[in-house]
Amino acid sequence: MKRVYLDAATSMPTMEAVVKEMLPYMTENYGNPSSIHEMGRFPRDGMERSRKEVADLISAKPEEIIFTSGATESINLALRGTLPFAKERKKIMISKICHRSVRATATALKTSGHDLEFLPIDKFGMIDVERSSGIIDNGTSIVSIPFASNEVGTLQPVREISRISKDAGALLHIDLTMSAFQVPFDVTDVDVDLATISSPDLMGPKGMGALYVRNGTRITSLLQGGGQERGLRSGSENVPGMVGMGAAARIAKERMEETSQGLIDLRDHLINGLTEIPHSNLNGHPTERLPNNANVRFEFVEGESMLLMLDMNGVSIATGSACAQKTLEASKTLLAMGLKHEEAHGSLMFTLGPYNTMSDVNHVTGIMAEIVDELRSMSPTFNKE
Amino acid sequence: MKRVYLDAATSMPTMEAVVKEMLPYMTENYGNPSSIHEMGRFPRDGMERSRKEVADLISAKPEEIIFTSGATESINLALRGTLPFAKERKKIMISKICHRSVRATATALKTSGHDLEFLPIDKFGMIDVERSSGIIDNGTSIVSIPFASNEVGTLQPVREISRISKDAGALLHIDLTMSAFQVPFDVTDVDVDLATISSPDLMGPKGMGALYVRNGTRITSLLQGGGQERGLRSGSENVPGMVGMGAAARIAKERMEETSQGLIDLRDHLINGLTEIPHSNLNGHPTERLPNNANVRFEFVEGESMLLMLDMNGVSIATGSACAQKTLEASKTLLAMGLKHEEAHGSLMFTLGPYNTMSDVNHVTGIMAEIVDELRSMSPTFNKE
Repeated sequence: MKRVYLDAATSMPTMEAVVKEMLPYMTENYGNPSSIHEMGRFPRDGMERSRKEVADLISAKPEEIIFTSGATESINLALRGTLPFAKERKKIMISKICHRSVRATATALKTSGHDLEFLPIDKFGMIDVERSSGIIDNGTSIVSIPFASNEVGTLQPVREISRISKDAGALLHIDLTMSAFQVPFDVTDVDVDLATISSPDLMGPKGMGALYVRNGTRITSLLQGGGQERGLRSGSENVPGMVGMGAAARIAKERMEETSQGLIDLRDHLINGLTEIPHSNLNGHPTERLPNNANVRFEFVEGESMLLMLDMNGVSIATGSACAQKTLEASKTLLAMGLKHEEAHGSLMFTLGPYNTMSDVNHVTGIMAEIVDELRSMSPTFNKE
Repeated sequence: MKRVYLDAATSMPTMEAVVKEMLPYMTENYGNPSSIHEMGRFPRDGMERSRKEVADLISAKPEEIIFTSGATESINLALRGTLPFAKERKKIMISKICHRSVRATATALKTSGHDLEFLPIDKFGMIDVERSSGIIDNGTSIVSIPFASNEVGTLQPVREISRISKDAGALLHIDLTMSAFQVPFDVTDVDVDLATISSPDLMGPKGMGALYVRNGTRITSLLQGGGQERGLRSGSENVPGMVGMGAAARIAKERMEETSQGLIDLRDHLINGLTEIPHSNLNGHPTERLPNNANVRFEFVEGESMLLMLDMNGVSIATGSACAQKTLEASKTLLAMGLKHEEAHGSLMFTLGPYNTMSDVNHVTGIMAEIVDELRSMSPTFNKE
């Protein structure tokens, strides 16, 4: 059976080339970069080279990159670490298209006297700039938005939200998790204070991430200890992880244009194939979307059933938000976009990686047509039509 | 030039066998363990097998193991995560032989209304049980001690401190970082609520650790997000890291007796050789010490100078506390043991790994005799004797 993996948003493999660069730091150059003896030198060099590679991906300065254990920690650090300096500003602004960890962190902060408000989004899953400008104000401590929705793939008006946030004197955190390997982002072009980068979403090693902290941004650490990462992230450095993330960032930057165009070709073919199935529609923006994302709703069928039948046919995809799929509740993003519960439940997220081929796409659209047909033939709601 | 690495306490290589077990989870079984499709199954199985392997190392139940990004995070989670449930108990008890991250975390908690007190230690770097019993009381929220000093290697009276802590109704956290690969520890034998295990100190991958949380212990998370690790450690799981840590724990347990005896033979030979150098003395307990630790003070010489000369001769060791050696202040542990500043500054920490040989030890003792001789010949204080 041909196996096709269209679930990049949930997890991607680590590139072989990345693994190859990591290995010497696991078994040979294994010293602690804080060591003053010879064995500390190679790891220290590897760490700083990697920091520069990650910085280069978003045109940041190396000292603005703090390595963390992943996107969730970066997001927690960005939101929690800056709040002690927010003073009278008590309002945290996020959106219903954010990653679950943004929402969970912001919600937890409500118990320590902060207000949480949601930026309005339109039917495409795009933050509404006009309505946002009225509610981001001088009581806002931090605005956190993703560069792209991790579910429906809609690219966000980061430049406009940046302008509004800066005008209001609020900090801006951008979550680049889903976008960093496929859409360029440049901190010298868009004014942001904090940005989260995930290593596995660059096809780098898991358990690694980074937080961009613009020079001058006041922030405190979540973990206490040896004072590594300029005091912002204590703990003996995971040098192999850093080296792997650096390599992944370098390769992502080198291949960005090629990756992006390749994914767009596949995605458009996939969207065309899937929306040719009767009663199916694309979720999210028709053009302003991640190169690798196709989120489609199929009427009169349950996402869960489709997913299971796809799985039996060797195709791996996801419903709703990627990282914690054991909860089968309807996607908050889709509901916020105005979809009905049954529409949200009938939606599937297909996310491509650079390893996918046109043959994968053709295979999946073919199987999907069969599956939807079969499920609808059993559906009382569909038969009634 | 023969290179000898006697700095295991600062960093150890990842075992080749461990790397080999990790690799398939990086490039092939890369799915997210939360995925309900087929690609989630292998990672999920790997994760749960690894959890059991880590649990087995200390005879815990798998569900009592929470994977983290390392010892520093485990320690922060143990100390910070339990405090919301401490109620009227406001006293945190640590010791001056603790790892820096224990002290830093406990110190940071002072700002949120907690008191910090130090358990007394004796001249061997061992916690004084009798005097401790008077100060661990019903105002104590948590007692945190290492199973062994990471600097001088002295094994601690964990059974007695456990009894006293339990009598007082306080939680007990044990830091197993340095000891776990070489000295058995059994949570069914010693009553502890929380225990930190470090993956790199088991010769597993860096950027991984675990916290043992005894069933029934009330604890909350530091990071908010997808609710992984029973809600205690959000963030997409680092399955390759978990698999590596599991493998390292399994191998550590299998080889414990052999590892321990091999290290003791090397250590005793090393201590004998080093203390044959005139005016040199062992720091820490003569017998109750980690199999891999020799901490020796050399009068009339500076640790820093010895370390640099050893480095020039291809020998890597450390002074003072291992993980953040850029600060050249005298070891707090040695000072707390009653050593004078110059004695602390003249101390070196030699820590062995299973990869070391008798030839390494002979090489180092030979070079050390020459170096100490040479440095003393230049020392005004020594000439005056």
